[in-house]
Amino acid sequence: MSDLEALKKEAALRAVALVQSGMRVGLGTGSTAKYAIEELGRKLASGELSGIVGVATSEASDSLARQVGVPVEPFDPRPLDLAIDGADEIDPDLNLIKGLGGALLREKLTEVQARRFVVIADHTKLVTRLGEKAPLPVEITRFGFLSTIERLRAQGLGGRLRQPGAQPYVTDNGNYIFDAQLPEHFEAAELERQLKGTLGVVETGFFLGMAERAFVAAPDGVREVVPR
Amino acid sequence: MSDLEALKKEAALRAVALVQSGMRVGLGTGSTAKYAIEELGRKLASGELSGIVGVATSEASDSLARQVGVPVEPFDPRPLDLAIDGADEIDPDLNLIKGLGGALLREKLTEVQARRFVVIADHTKLVTRLGEKAPLPVEITRFGFLSTIERLRAQGLGGRLRQPGAQPYVTDNGNYIFDAQLPEHFEAAELERQLKGTLGVVETGFFLGMAERAFVAAPDGVREVVPR
Repeated sequence: MSDLEALKKEAALRAVALVQSGMRVGLGTGSTAKYAIEELGRKLASGELSGIVGVATSEASDSLARQVGVPVEPFDPRPLDLAIDGADEIDPDLNLIKGLGGALLREKLTEVQARRFVVIADHTKLVTRLGEKAPLPVEITRFGFLSTIERLRAQGLGGRLRQPGAQPYVTDNGNYIFDAQLPEHFEAAELERQLKGTLGVVETGFFLGMAERAFVAAPDGVREVVPR
Repeated sequence: MSDLEALKKEAALRAVALVQSGMRVGLGTGSTAKYAIEELGRKLASGELSGIVGVATSEASDSLARQVGVPVEPFDPRPLDLAIDGADEIDPDLNLIKGLGGALLREKLTEVQARRFVVIADHTKLVTRLGEKAPLPVEITRFGFLSTIERLRAQGLGGRLRQPGAQPYVTDNGNYIFDAQLPEHFEAAELERQLKGTLGVVETGFFLGMAERAFVAAPDGVREVVPR
């Protein structure tokens, strides 16, 4: 395991320590959330935890959970006790950019229902302002996507359609993703409103005011971050 | 042809009279727009018009256009010279509710690109305030739809998921539709922003400030309505 992978796992273990028997737990998606799902499976197998129900934010996390012995139920409107997920960027207010993995819509729909949403990450994900390193993924409808991208560009956003091969990337919901380069100065809540209000936009990768705390693993230890 | 059908056709003919040879024309969806497409086909066949390109707002309109001899091109970001479509409700400011036919997203994406958007309807579609007779169709993602409906209800909207049979209605974009009962008092632009900003909402059936004019057919003749 590389150093970065070891850090991701450390952060994941700290978050899973918050899980108590009988909880409904939102299962994130991605390379860090994976360690949390595996740790949940380990604790269920060892008897440290029991009666956990997982609610997955993607097909991939659903499969992994079943594989490691975490019972999974479909998403429904009931609140979750806790959700654990990674992030692509974390700012000092614990506002996030998510969605580089492509699951932003399901993650947002799930995690907004969690009484506690806990973020896990290695230290490379900490930024002083969102957009510093990562693009903002914006999920857009397939029909009319070129026009929608023009509307986004007219709002000052650079960026490009996510297209790993010959065809554009398609989300679990059948939409495309525009990876937007954020301008240097913006107010996140205002930009979120503006983008979500744009014709053709389904959802953005901004997760603002949702996270309760983050466990951020660095070589000198795991730091617990709460909104400043 | 019933009286109401005759009125729909009268309104459609008035709108098609605005089409000139060589125009790119947005083709609406529904029982009134159908007459406009048929009339375009007739004028192309008779030589009254030539060089028309149609851009359809639904699979159904695409098929009908080809059938009656209107050349159709796929939607792209180029502006349309004119778009002609029906509406479910028309208020005195020419704000509309559309989407009872289920094509609201494609219609909105198409018609927003038209230099001129002309509405055709029979007189039963005129209302003093939107929501008077018709529900407001709200297109929502399938994943998490029950939670999204709870968020809409929390904003004071009654209504129900569109479900004509055993399964919910699915749009061309793979989403569901919540037919919302509007409250008696609301400000349409504000409600539109609020609804579009709601997690899980893809688009609403409000078409505000988009229509240039409407041809509304009543038993005593066709009235041309412009925003007051």
